[in-house]
Amino acid sequence: MHIPQTKIGIGMDSCVTPLRHAGLSLVQTTDFFYPLVDDPYMQGKIACANVLSDLYAMGVTECDNMLMLLGVSTKMSEKERDVVVPLMLRGFRDAAAEANTSVNGGQTVMNPWCTIGGVASSICQSSELIVPDGAVVGDVLVLTKPLGTQVAVNAHQWLDQPERWNKIKLIVSEEDVRKAYYRAMNSMARLNKKAAELMHKYNAHGATDVTGFGLLGHAQNLAKNQRNEVSFIIHNLPIIAKMASVAKACGNMFHLLQGSSAETSGGLLICLPREQAAAYCKDIEKQEGYQAWIIGIVEKGNRTARIIDKPRVIEVPAKEKEGELW
Amino acid sequence: MHIPQTKIGIGMDSCVTPLRHAGLSLVQTTDFFYPLVDDPYMQGKIACANVLSDLYAMGVTECDNMLMLLGVSTKMSEKERDVVVPLMLRGFRDAAAEANTSVNGGQTVMNPWCTIGGVASSICQSSELIVPDGAVVGDVLVLTKPLGTQVAVNAHQWLDQPERWNKIKLIVSEEDVRKAYYRAMNSMARLNKKAAELMHKYNAHGATDVTGFGLLGHAQNLAKNQRNEVSFIIHNLPIIAKMASVAKACGNMFHLLQGSSAETSGGLLICLPREQAAAYCKDIEKQEGYQAWIIGIVEKGNRTARIIDKPRVIEVPAKEKEGELW
Repeated sequence: MHIPQTKIGIGMDSCVTPLRHAGLSLVQTTDFFYPLVDDPYMQGKIACANVLSDLYAMGVTECDNMLMLLGVSTKMSEKERDVVVPLMLRGFRDAAAEANTSVNGGQTVMNPWCTIGGVASSICQSSELIVPDGAVVGDVLVLTKPLGTQVAVNAHQWLDQPERWNKIKLIVSEEDVRKAYYRAMNSMARLNKKAAELMHKYNAHGATDVTGFGLLGHAQNLAKNQRNEVSFIIHNLPIIAKMASVAKACGNMFHLLQGSSAETSGGLLICLPREQAAAYCKDIEKQEGYQAWIIGIVEKGNRTARIIDKPRVIEVPAKEKEGELW
Repeated sequence: MHIPQTKIGIGMDSCVTPLRHAGLSLVQTTDFFYPLVDDPYMQGKIACANVLSDLYAMGVTECDNMLMLLGVSTKMSEKERDVVVPLMLRGFRDAAAEANTSVNGGQTVMNPWCTIGGVASSICQSSELIVPDGAVVGDVLVLTKPLGTQVAVNAHQWLDQPERWNKIKLIVSEEDVRKAYYRAMNSMARLNKKAAELMHKYNAHGATDVTGFGLLGHAQNLAKNQRNEVSFIIHNLPIIAKMASVAKACGNMFHLLQGSSAETSGGLLICLPREQAAAYCKDIEKQEGYQAWIIGIVEKGNRTARIIDKPRVIEVPAKEKEGELW
């Protein structure tokens, strides 16, 4: 839950503070959370990608500095700490390096729960920013990562919890769950930087990143902030393979098909001119090897977002990449 | 404990990142910790003053934005939460307003322990910065707040713990402890902003703020970072009244007189030209109504700091201010 922001930061992914120095703004965001994958190095990468994502959602591609926020669990033994913490730090720094930024400063505390996160800051010209309020009727909505990360992470934990696993084992195999978990982990660790760069190339009208409130929650927030009288209608739900079935089997637990399953370090949801969207998706796939999807349209409306009654679920498979399973 | 910093941020209170925009730097710091006073509003102010203090130590007086980092305790009842959290937020925002900055953005999580802190960022010209590496032989050391905050906070808690209280009750009265506690609380909530502004007026050669490592720890760190071959010799220890006696009675618990008792949101320790130091102290007292003290000297040496064998303890009394006890 974010503290309400004032100025032009209201309801946006990063806060934007006009500076004393002519033409420049400070674009800043912070996020930290509790680990959700069992690989500390990947957890570090995910935490970093997740923080940066709020800048990328605003079209800001250059981060000038990151701070790291770390809570080391008081329940870890010294040995566990000495293994886990350096790996998390390395993952965080590696992701920062990949984003062409660095980590200078931060704070580490002892805490009952392990926490990891950070702060990302960019000082930029207003031309570097895409204020997420310019959607027009006729735009389409593009999503750059599949949904279902939370479902995949939970299902993976259930492999060790027979009473939970028994409820879904008729629907998915262990192999399916492992594939989904690795796909989710890789997806969460992937930067939205390229997605942000291409927003400029293809004249995006605004974006948000899909995180804790799920696809629909963030779509509604984005819709609410539009200058024009528009609404977002979502037709397609790209979901990590088999996770739609798992979510259904869990009843009302995830609300994945309703669009409110939390995601971590999810994709960008972007409003693009209709004639540019396909090129955007083709370009990102060419450059990164990952698909993006046109998932909906922008209609005349009262600044709301909804998913149609029977959305099409697009099963997004794991993929082999350099011999590893993603 | 701070994550080691690179670039010119090494060992300093804030990290300094040169920006793409000519002549400007991003000066940034973060800190968060666990509450230590029982007044949520004052705790909010203290957390804010403590974060800003790292900017002030670098001579930076204008903060462009703050983020708030909050962990709401899972052990609080909903009712406690609804009372405590808004008070902490208000304290934090009031201190930010006093510092002529504002809080835009942040992150709130649920956590077993309550945590509060933030991020302070300033985008400034290099002339706004006082890099803490310019001490010269003949300088004197000035301290702008008394020591002993941790001792006072602990002694105050012991009023409710008979077995602890019995060990110190022959040395201090309940009244003494309450006065010391209020003095400490007020001191921690006080901004180092004026102290930083006057560093420019009186040509300071560098400073640090006294926090978790205690006076000597931070003095040693400051000494280590000097360009010249200097050492810091500390003769005087201004300490909240009676807290030196309490610390002594507690044996090796606090190391207050050895200079390593942790402080929260402590004063600035400043290297000033000898001929300017008295004027600095007089000016700050005139403007704020609080004393500052010349506590030591800068000699030729190998970049270390020490406290002399029998330092003079300056008892700093509580003071009446507008009818309230501080």
